[in-house]
Amino acid sequence: MGQRCSIGLDFGTNSVRALLVDVATGEEIATNVWDYAHGEAGVIVDTKDPNLARQHPADYLKGTEITIREILKQAGDVAPQDIIGIGVDTTGSTPLPVDEKGTPLALHERFTTTPAAMAWLWKDHTGFAEAGEITSLAARIRPHYLAKCGGTYSSEWFWSKMFHCLRTSPEVFEAAYTWVEIADWIPGFLTGTSDPERLKRGICAAGHKAMFNPSWNGYPDEEFLAELDPKLARVRKTLPNRAYTVSDVAGGLSPEWAEKTGLPEGIPVAVGAFDAHLGGVGSGIVPGVLVKIIGTSTCDMMVHPLNRELPDIPGLCGIVPESILPGYYGLEAGQSAVGDIFNWFVNSIQPGGAQKGSHEELTRQAEKLRPGESGLLALDWHNGNRTILVDQRLTGMILGMTLHTTPAEIYRALIEATAMGARTIAERFEEYGVKVERVVNCGGISAKNPLAMQIYADVMGRPLDISRSGQTCALGAAMAGAVVARRAKGGFDRFEDATPVMTGVLDRKFNPNPDSCRIYDRLYVHYRRLHDSFGTTQSQENLFSVMKELLVIRDEVRKQ
Amino acid sequence: MGQRCSIGLDFGTNSVRALLVDVATGEEIATNVWDYAHGEAGVIVDTKDPNLARQHPADYLKGTEITIREILKQAGDVAPQDIIGIGVDTTGSTPLPVDEKGTPLALHERFTTTPAAMAWLWKDHTGFAEAGEITSLAARIRPHYLAKCGGTYSSEWFWSKMFHCLRTSPEVFEAAYTWVEIADWIPGFLTGTSDPERLKRGICAAGHKAMFNPSWNGYPDEEFLAELDPKLARVRKTLPNRAYTVSDVAGGLSPEWAEKTGLPEGIPVAVGAFDAHLGGVGSGIVPGVLVKIIGTSTCDMMVHPLNRELPDIPGLCGIVPESILPGYYGLEAGQSAVGDIFNWFVNSIQPGGAQKGSHEELTRQAEKLRPGESGLLALDWHNGNRTILVDQRLTGMILGMTLHTTPAEIYRALIEATAMGARTIAERFEEYGVKVERVVNCGGISAKNPLAMQIYADVMGRPLDISRSGQTCALGAAMAGAVVARRAKGGFDRFEDATPVMTGVLDRKFNPNPDSCRIYDRLYVHYRRLHDSFGTTQSQENLFSVMKELLVIRDEVRKQ
Repeated sequence: MGQRCSIGLDFGTNSVRALLVDVATGEEIATNVWDYAHGEAGVIVDTKDPNLARQHPADYLKGTEITIREILKQAGDVAPQDIIGIGVDTTGSTPLPVDEKGTPLALHERFTTTPAAMAWLWKDHTGFAEAGEITSLAARIRPHYLAKCGGTYSSEWFWSKMFHCLRTSPEVFEAAYTWVEIADWIPGFLTGTSDPERLKRGICAAGHKAMFNPSWNGYPDEEFLAELDPKLARVRKTLPNRAYTVSDVAGGLSPEWAEKTGLPEGIPVAVGAFDAHLGGVGSGIVPGVLVKIIGTSTCDMMVHPLNRELPDIPGLCGIVPESILPGYYGLEAGQSAVGDIFNWFVNSIQPGGAQKGSHEELTRQAEKLRPGESGLLALDWHNGNRTILVDQRLTGMILGMTLHTTPAEIYRALIEATAMGARTIAERFEEYGVKVERVVNCGGISAKNPLAMQIYADVMGRPLDISRSGQTCALGAAMAGAVVARRAKGGFDRFEDATPVMTGVLDRKFNPNPDSCRIYDRLYVHYRRLHDSFGTTQSQENLFSVMKELLVIRDEVRKQ
Repeated sequence: MGQRCSIGLDFGTNSVRALLVDVATGEEIATNVWDYAHGEAGVIVDTKDPNLARQHPADYLKGTEITIREILKQAGDVAPQDIIGIGVDTTGSTPLPVDEKGTPLALHERFTTTPAAMAWLWKDHTGFAEAGEITSLAARIRPHYLAKCGGTYSSEWFWSKMFHCLRTSPEVFEAAYTWVEIADWIPGFLTGTSDPERLKRGICAAGHKAMFNPSWNGYPDEEFLAELDPKLARVRKTLPNRAYTVSDVAGGLSPEWAEKTGLPEGIPVAVGAFDAHLGGVGSGIVPGVLVKIIGTSTCDMMVHPLNRELPDIPGLCGIVPESILPGYYGLEAGQSAVGDIFNWFVNSIQPGGAQKGSHEELTRQAEKLRPGESGLLALDWHNGNRTILVDQRLTGMILGMTLHTTPAEIYRALIEATAMGARTIAERFEEYGVKVERVVNCGGISAKNPLAMQIYADVMGRPLDISRSGQTCALGAAMAGAVVARRAKGGFDRFEDATPVMTGVLDRKFNPNPDSCRIYDRLYVHYRRLHDSFGTTQSQENLFSVMKELLVIRDEVRKQ
């Protein structure tokens, strides 16, 4: 048997990436990115409604064809028949209305320019009112639905979007037979199984975004949905009571798509999942490992064996069996804004102007500052707080400013605030018995911002590993491709076998500096006091000493 | 009797101003400013010690001569013999070590370049440790000393500076016979009465800065001072037990200074006072009028009849009989930073860079914002809080930031925060029975920043008058000159007679907008919640609703 490879397809917000990976080593042999053709950088927007964000499904089809053809061209010694499997990850929740055959309505002549008939991108918030209604109703009559998704049903999710379409674009809603996540629809079209009867829907999207749970027989019941609108109960009838994991085969590559891509017919394609989750897989997630994808926001993931007890963990956005890895609960947490906060400060506040206020220059100055010496403390809630407070209506804060405070001090304080938010998440996992033995990081910040990573190590008091791959989502998808190929075909029977072979970390590690940890431990006490006073209804602490203690720490540090 | 005029001499931080005023109308006939020659813009600093700020007394002598000569040149029809009196205001506490004849040590050959022998400018903070010791000792054995100065003895004040000199420049301390405020020394040299036996010390400086009070027989007692250091008790012996008001005559212009300035010998010179207090006088202070001098910081002044009861008012920096006007208690409050905060944001944070982030451009944008629409709320404590918390170790804060927050929104929120600080002061006066019937404003912000003034009117819910004079301190000093001349010489017997004639307000008034007031009343509730939680040890309020209420207000305003 020669070299065996798999392909990961990663459908992002602005582009699709194909990655060709050697399954025996994890070596990334070829990659190609295609920018979506529609809208602004792939996103169809509405100048009158900032909540609207859609994508045209034609872009997914075209991008799949182009990027696979391109990596085959670059593949060198690797021939199409060496490719043993394909995996798919996508953004989500990004649902799409389809007809009885599973064809997206936006591909019908009649709806080709109708935004409601396209894919409702994860960051579309048009359904915020409907999300509120769903949350209220569930709180009243199905509280267990909310317990698994952090207590609030989001405007970004499956049912909110469908419900908003029902109300605002009834012609589209009526024309749709059902709705599918693109994570499910893409493996469907690749394997000719996109018709709703045969489509295999993934547990990742269903469990985290559509209130699917095996303990209540799948999706929300018709009675519940009918209470929102009887037409939603009609859609419920089109949904199955079973969902699949990424180690399940969606089907074999169809003759049509074999033709289009140049790959052999019948190659197994894995059931799809969300990018963050397969990013966790591509970062080597196993029990005890916290994978953090740190970019504009973060996704924090852990897994926990299905056969070991797990309490509900307050504030986690989702606890779904097998949503990340088969055989394990998938635990998802996150921060609503991280890099977005740094970008806001640099681009919207523009401290110091164009030259003096660049990320590079602020980083250069902020690196010279010692922990505590600015006297500043911030709350990283500029886009709300996902974990552990699950509250989009929290806002950012900074205190400790004097007439001598500099932009670099504020920049560093914002980084520190996100690091303290990260520590809060790690501590929440451990408080509920999910031990964090190792932290592996991926995403843009982990790759490009060593100052932030060192601050994270110092604030969290833990060594931080950086994932070896720069494209862990696509790598995770390729691993799913290798797993659905199974061992007999040169792949793996289980992710447990694929992970040690196909993933790894860089030699470069960020180790906590004990002196910095001591200062940050003291600052974290005050972060939590602010966190609890502004973020919960329980704390009734007097905050008089916060500013004073910051100055005491500042003065101590400056004297050293 | 022809035109009768008086001269006000205003000794500021960087320069001295002479102002020639028609006493029958308040018309400002001529003015001249001379920049001090020593140091950086008149201030001698030490690159190794940012707390140090001194002035050379030779500058006061030279500036007096030059500016008086200059206004006489510009005086047109006004002849030297038409000038009936002179008043003096200065910065303070700015004490100066002098020899037995009252000559400043810095004018001795031996000490001419010795900073400790010069005037210790109001903003010199080198005595911070000594200020702490004085406060501690007073709290222990003389709590009534602290009750009149807001509970904390400042590093900026008389005894802290002298005590620090004693410890760090013993050769200067030993060479000094006594210490005098420049507010006292300048009338002294003009009238040849600067020798300590004859020098009339003003109640303004003594009462507000040197713990002088008639109720305990003047300055602090020797036993108290000896506990700090026996050498301070020795200085106490050189100090009188009486202090004078600005309606008292320091003396007549000496032959030497008549010669130097071209003025007739014997013109009465008033006892000196601090610039802010005579600025209050020049703004027309009478009972019921709050005068606000709004510049880099604010000074808020009221007067209250000596024969009407007045409780101690917590948080007021000083309550001193006759410190502003004879016959009245002088009540002094203030904010430690106002314009300084706006300048910090524009110059140190430099939002938007040089063009987009100027005061002018930020004002242009901030003017378009409606109250409440940013969702921001700030605490104006970037330089501590003078009134009502009297706590230099409080720091600035801002909350409500989102990823969409703009520099103009922050700029406006900082202005609003200072306006809420101003409202807190006005309310504190009224809580203790000192009714604020009218507010008259002077200082740079009141003259140049209509956006800030409108926000102040809306936040305070009161119409705001602007003082007619652009140099109220010098005008107040000139009024003192007119009062010490007495009616018989064409002046006034009492300030009550001078004030309606010599002061006035502009036609332009800032009236509160009822819609804005309603929003600011709601925001002020939350300002006070933050104020009390971070600024006092009493509040134990949960702050969860602060961010939420700001968003509710924001969303309401944006919908309008």
